[in-house]
Amino acid sequence: MENISVDIAFVKNVKQLVGEQNSTALGELLQTIYPQDIAELLDKLDNEEARYVMSNVPKEQIVKVLVEMEESVRAHFLSAYSTKEIADQFIQNMDSDDAAYVLGHLHTKEQEDVIGNLTDIEFASSLLSLLNYEEYTAGSLMAVELVKANISWTVAQCIEEIRRQAENVETIYVVYVVDEFERLVGIITLKNLILSKPELKIEEVFNKQVISVSTSTDSQEIANLFKKYDMVVLPVVNALGQLVGRITVDDVVEVIEEEANEDYQLMSGITEDVDSTDKVWVLSRARLPWLLIGLLGGIASSRFIAVYEDQIQIHPEMAFFIPLIAAMGGNAGVQSSAIVVQGLANNTLGTKNIMPKILKELRVGMLNGIICSALIFAYNMFFSDSFDLAITVSVALITVIVFASVLGTFIPLVLNKMKIDPAIATGPFITTTNDLLGLAIYFSVGRMLY
Amino acid sequence: MENISVDIAFVKNVKQLVGEQNSTALGELLQTIYPQDIAELLDKLDNEEARYVMSNVPKEQIVKVLVEMEESVRAHFLSAYSTKEIADQFIQNMDSDDAAYVLGHLHTKEQEDVIGNLTDIEFASSLLSLLNYEEYTAGSLMAVELVKANISWTVAQCIEEIRRQAENVETIYVVYVVDEFERLVGIITLKNLILSKPELKIEEVFNKQVISVSTSTDSQEIANLFKKYDMVVLPVVNALGQLVGRITVDDVVEVIEEEANEDYQLMSGITEDVDSTDKVWVLSRARLPWLLIGLLGGIASSRFIAVYEDQIQIHPEMAFFIPLIAAMGGNAGVQSSAIVVQGLANNTLGTKNIMPKILKELRVGMLNGIICSALIFAYNMFFSDSFDLAITVSVALITVIVFASVLGTFIPLVLNKMKIDPAIATGPFITTTNDLLGLAIYFSVGRMLY
Repeated sequence: MENISVDIAFVKNVKQLVGEQNSTALGELLQTIYPQDIAELLDKLDNEEARYVMSNVPKEQIVKVLVEMEESVRAHFLSAYSTKEIADQFIQNMDSDDAAYVLGHLHTKEQEDVIGNLTDIEFASSLLSLLNYEEYTAGSLMAVELVKANISWTVAQCIEEIRRQAENVETIYVVYVVDEFERLVGIITLKNLILSKPELKIEEVFNKQVISVSTSTDSQEIANLFKKYDMVVLPVVNALGQLVGRITVDDVVEVIEEEANEDYQLMSGITEDVDSTDKVWVLSRARLPWLLIGLLGGIASSRFIAVYEDQIQIHPEMAFFIPLIAAMGGNAGVQSSAIVVQGLANNTLGTKNIMPKILKELRVGMLNGIICSALIFAYNMFFSDSFDLAITVSVALITVIVFASVLGTFIPLVLNKMKIDPAIATGPFITTTNDLLGLAIYFSVGRMLY
Repeated sequence: MENISVDIAFVKNVKQLVGEQNSTALGELLQTIYPQDIAELLDKLDNEEARYVMSNVPKEQIVKVLVEMEESVRAHFLSAYSTKEIADQFIQNMDSDDAAYVLGHLHTKEQEDVIGNLTDIEFASSLLSLLNYEEYTAGSLMAVELVKANISWTVAQCIEEIRRQAENVETIYVVYVVDEFERLVGIITLKNLILSKPELKIEEVFNKQVISVSTSTDSQEIANLFKKYDMVVLPVVNALGQLVGRITVDDVVEVIEEEANEDYQLMSGITEDVDSTDKVWVLSRARLPWLLIGLLGGIASSRFIAVYEDQIQIHPEMAFFIPLIAAMGGNAGVQSSAIVVQGLANNTLGTKNIMPKILKELRVGMLNGIICSALIFAYNMFFSDSFDLAITVSVALITVIVFASVLGTFIPLVLNKMKIDPAIATGPFITTTNDLLGLAIYFSVGRMLY
């Protein structure tokens, strides 16, 4: 099997086969690609075509495709089935984490009906408890399928048990070792099992070093553990230390991505999780809050400048540099806060003191402020006939850059202490604050020097 | 072993043991934590303390600590050793990808000396070729240690071979199946090996479905493959299809993070990869380019407003809303471009047409523009005595928001086509453009309506 990309030619080919209702050729084509590719393909077809394609997906692939497909496509697809059919044909054949994920997107009533229709009661009750965990906790990310061995067994017994349990577990990374109370006490890798003599006790060959989290551990903390310790799978225990599930790295990669996207949107002034396929009014609603804050900031600016109306009437050239002062304050502030926000997100700032950071930003601000001020002073000496203006702009600019740099460092640190996502500070918040600050400095300096 | 965090109390405890030169207690303490924790600990100690701690790290842990520690700490630590000692005591005991990583941070001369001092010639030549791959390619990310089996073997032979090869490979996820020319033809999981009868041929039990990349594949593409197919390990082949290495998910997680950080810095107007511990002039240098662009933009604004000097002298209230217009254009532009940049980064925009997106942004911009304009109009009708001004500001505002939204969509798409990282567009670039655009619209409308 080649690495296939679902490109325009491929989609066109599929559309033609669907048009011809050529289910043999379509079935063969689908066998050459992965479930993820089929899901990607479905996103590019209309509902009727997607349904026909799904009816030709090999049975063992269909639940994987279902998990991977886009939410709206899946909702449409499932709407053609009764809750009993959804239980029998799909949910029953899924891993618990995938099943909980798909069920999580259904209405509560439907969820309950589907779970009620499952014949495997143990699986059904696992799903119920998975669905009850709070979002973004270990409990909501984990799957209950795993292979475990009792510490008192022999290696041979353990391998026998793997044979028995393996059917339910798609990928085995390690075997978890538990005591007689089902408490997690260590791990043993398949490699170790293969390399150990069959008659040895697990006790003699297992590894006591195991990092675990509790069901309530936050997803961000979990992501940090995976990153720090280069893990591929992490066991989850309950309050009694009993093994209840495992989280795999692919789910964590999604958490890391989501987190990055969220920060990105926050700092761009978008308040809801939206993407470009959402409806116009959803996109509009997500953006309005920050626009309105910007509007308020702009109104505040206008009131502020109004105080200096006389000054502007006498020296209209004061108005020329309003955008420059405002923009430079915004830029310098965003630059400083970005460094801090990033440091906080990567856990590289954590325990250290705030003061040295602010002092350092002060120095960076001074340096950049001096350079920019000198340049604008030179410009004004050449191109403007007012020495007073040149002095005013330069003095204001250096002050604005220094203040903005320090504020840009300070605000995210304070937000973080207040348990507010500091990424918010890198967006319109800091720009608006610095606009006002910049104008205040500019006109005060102007009044003094002019 | 508990999950340990290297907190203030822990560091204090270590500092005390170092002060007492209590190597027994220190050694015992270090045995309770992971190499990653030791590396984190070292970052918090001074050079003398770090050296003493390192001399007490258990021998089997020391190379792992070396890979995890911060670059400057490692450089200082290694400076106390000769190139022969570095080769014998450290590099020789590392996996090839870790060894290449550590060597990559040494000067070329030192690199060559260390490699020349390695006694394992095969390993040395692997390192040489790994170091030659371009950064951010599969070749530079992969390790050469892997377990492979010939397609003609039996399962029993294969397990025997794993025993032989396993010593060199820390974690085995799958066994790669190759033909007689060393070409990758498939995989077999350890689970399958354990579950298969020993006398069966690999040919009968292996999985032909395997995704692989070539040594020159770009790291971003690799990250996308891992994300899409939920992989933990990916084989790398050369131009002849021969298996040359494997990439593991932990390296890819780093790529994903780096990419996110880079975008974050780009959109914050920071041009180099810096963090808060860098020197003042490095931080300053990384920020100056965008500040200077902002400065140029500000100067352009000032020239532009100067054209309307007479208008401002007659109607100084025109100046009041300069910051509002500029800020709103910037905000709306950043919001639009963020959505597009994100879509491009997640590969969810790819093949589709540009026109519908721009039309949609036009509609979102219209809607938000109308709402904001209506609000500012109401405000001006209440608090300002000039109806002309109220009309001018509102007409300008709606125009600015619509234009900024469309430009914010258009610019990243164009940059992407030009193979420039579109994240750059979400930063000062779009803010500066929109400042100018906003002013042009504002004063043109003012001239027409006033």
